[in-house]
Amino acid sequence: MSQVRVHNFSVSLDGFATGIGQSLHEPFGHAGGRLHEWFFATRTFRAMHGEAGGTTGIDDALAGMWAPGIGAEIMGRGKFGPQRGPWSGQAGRAEWNGWWGAEPPFHTPVFVLTHHPRPSIEMAGGTTFHFIDAGPVESLALARKAAGHSDIRLGGGPSTVRRFLAADLVDHLHITVVPIVLGRGERLWDGLEGLEQRFAVESVSSPSGVTHQIFTRR
Amino acid sequence: MSQVRVHNFSVSLDGFATGIGQSLHEPFGHAGGRLHEWFFATRTFRAMHGEAGGTTGIDDALAGMWAPGIGAEIMGRGKFGPQRGPWSGQAGRAEWNGWWGAEPPFHTPVFVLTHHPRPSIEMAGGTTFHFIDAGPVESLALARKAAGHSDIRLGGGPSTVRRFLAADLVDHLHITVVPIVLGRGERLWDGLEGLEQRFAVESVSSPSGVTHQIFTRR
Repeated sequence: MSQVRVHNFSVSLDGFATGIGQSLHEPFGHAGGRLHEWFFATRTFRAMHGEAGGTTGIDDALAGMWAPGIGAEIMGRGKFGPQRGPWSGQAGRAEWNGWWGAEPPFHTPVFVLTHHPRPSIEMAGGTTFHFIDAGPVESLALARKAAGHSDIRLGGGPSTVRRFLAADLVDHLHITVVPIVLGRGERLWDGLEGLEQRFAVESVSSPSGVTHQIFTRR
Repeated sequence: MSQVRVHNFSVSLDGFATGIGQSLHEPFGHAGGRLHEWFFATRTFRAMHGEAGGTTGIDDALAGMWAPGIGAEIMGRGKFGPQRGPWSGQAGRAEWNGWWGAEPPFHTPVFVLTHHPRPSIEMAGGTTFHFIDAGPVESLALARKAAGHSDIRLGGGPSTVRRFLAADLVDHLHITVVPIVLGRGERLWDGLEGLEQRFAVESVSSPSGVTHQIFTRR
């Protein structure tokens, strides 16, 4: 069976994976880019954006596991955009096609979980956004069908990862703990007491200051 | 000036430093011993209890920084015991002298923060418990006077460490992140947004599975 994988999922010391006040200009709200500086600095991230250079140590090694073997992604609507509610009726909503420009880095089908379905959007480079009103089990069945024998990436945000973890549908979870105290936002760990009993956990600190934690389902 | 140091302060992935339901039998409530297994296994901890053996790697190296150079400890009442309110009027209260037996491992004056002062208790081995109704600044002045030129250990629990951090009175903070999700309890990080701006942070993961984070005040 194909695996369900979470990669490069950054959390603060106090467990927040995103801040408050998400907007078009601040996808992670008041957290800004602080949770992902380690990722932006990697060769993997820079190459995704057509840039040369970048770090090539442990941060990059883990960052680079993001793409290989993935056949589809599932993401929450908050990762796709800052809008809530219906897609029509407000300026710019119907045209919104994500934060990632004309050629998103996914290159696979992407299933966006929303209570407000809309027609699929086919982007350049192989990414197609599908909008489905479905829970973890149903969306995973759709993603698996689209992915063939490849794995499914669970792209976030925190409430989506939490729901899949609560349903015990995650096989590989790569968390990056960033040494900042965000204070406010959305927590990853709420409602997951005893999660460690279902996973083997490895931790490795990076000279960049972050600590990677890799959860492998037992 | 002498330093204020926190050592071996364990927190769960979700930031809890103690569970709920503290009792005579469970100082850390439903967390049990899970937050401190790494510490119990060290040569340092075993030697404190007159036992031989124990781990001698990075966990022990950091655990062993606990004692040298310390001239006094400050602790919250919850670290001293599970009782709340007045010391008299209930069986066993007036006799309570801590969890640590006749010869506690502190070997210095220990200032217990409580709204219910009581006479000091002199134990074997150089530990004397003083009970004071005082905030961070005042208790630190008393501890410094007792410690001479030596450092002050801030012993916990989480609300006590949090108060001293909020007052910017901590110089050295050694946190150990244990890969468990406690779900409930008392959080260390609440109300400390932006703390990292005041500290340099180093992280090192141990083969035991925990990650040590050392905060040094800038």
